Amino acid sequence: MLRRITPTTIHPPFANYCHATLVQSTARWLYVSGQLGIRPDGVIPEDFEQQAEACFDNIARILAEAGMRTADLVRLNAYLTDPADLATYMMVRDRHVGDPPPASTLLVVQALARPQFRIEIEATAAA
Amino acid sequence: MLRRITPTTIHPPFANYCHATLVQSTARWLYVSGQLGIRPDGVIPEDFEQQAEACFDNIARILAEAGMRTADLVRLNAYLTDPADLATYMMVRDRHVGDPPPASTLLVVQALARPQFRIEIEATAAA
Amino acid sequence: MLRRITPTTIHPPFANYCHATLVQSTARWLYVSGQLGIRPDGVIPEDFEQQAEACFDNIARILAEAGMRTADLVRLNAYLTDPADLATYMMVRDRHVGDPPPASTLLVVQALARPQFRIEIEATAAA
Repeated sequence: MLRRITPTTIHPPFANYCHATLVQSTARWLYVSGQLGIRPDGVIPEDFEQQAEACFDNIARILAEAGMRTADLVRLNAYLTDPADLATYMMVRDRHVGDPPPASTLLVVQALARPQFRIEIEATAAA
Repeated sequence: MLRRITPTTIHPPFANYCHATLVQSTARWLYVSGQLGIRPDGVIPEDFEQQAEACFDNIARILAEAGMRTADLVRLNAYLTDPADLATYMMVRDRHVGDPPPASTLLVVQALARPQFRIEIEATAAA
Repeated sequence: MLRRITPTTIHPPFANYCHATLVQSTARWLYVSGQLGIRPDGVIPEDFEQQAEACFDNIARILAEAGMRTADLVRLNAYLTDPADLATYMMVRDRHVGDPPPASTLLVVQALARPQFRIEIEATAAA
């Protein structure tokens, strides 16, 4: 249902993402809210890496609830608040995305919905 | 056509949004440009709350032109320029989104297309 | 397959974009990663305008690889790091988008994946 597009006519991706995902018209879609680094019990870890892990855990559980899985991710949009966390984010992403990985957008923004949050990850999936 | 997904395996949403929206393959889609706080006559209110109201009014009129309505919103992506406006944004959103509400992403960014704009809201709908 | 929606009940777009794009259910979709200003040989121009041109060139090549073209763009999301570059971005966009143009979201963010990047453009297309 998903085809990853990474043309050889442009520079390869810098990290673990594909340049684009092509989705057939028969797919159903899952639009996931920007997920924050909060665990099921309400704990918000101070550590960036643990927040990023919690975001991916949340996305995995939402996908499961909709009968989908990580391989169905079309695009991940990640929003960090500190450029110093970029390398750690990419490391955590590597642990969670499939092979081939989804398309990706990665931005550093001024702030998120509450000051303690250091990352928000939005996902779009189709299957 | 839309099913709101809010799994009990993760922390509930902090505010008036669902964790994800599932859309069937038979839907047609409306991708709305980031809407700014400008009224039909070109007036851009200085007040944040009035700008946010104008964004939602614009979205409602675009939905109507496409034969859709607020209940068809799949995801709202809101971009503010000042974290001090977050609570007001959530209050305005409560007045405009349906029940159940759409998925959501909320970011504070450095600036928008012109300095007088304090909020931009992008919408995706399906019906 | 695409219909551009620009209602007369709201203020017209400020620049070269439509207020919304309506997509039929029979379309297949292309979700493009945020493209950066890097040329096929790996050169990252210092100049903002050349980076923006490289982003659009990359998008055009990805569309071509998927059997699509610029007219199939549903929405462009552009992320700049300096508000001083907004006018140049809009000039470059005018050279590349079709008529009628796609929907658009335009934000100024704190930073991108590497300090030398000054613009990232994410695209969604359907045909």
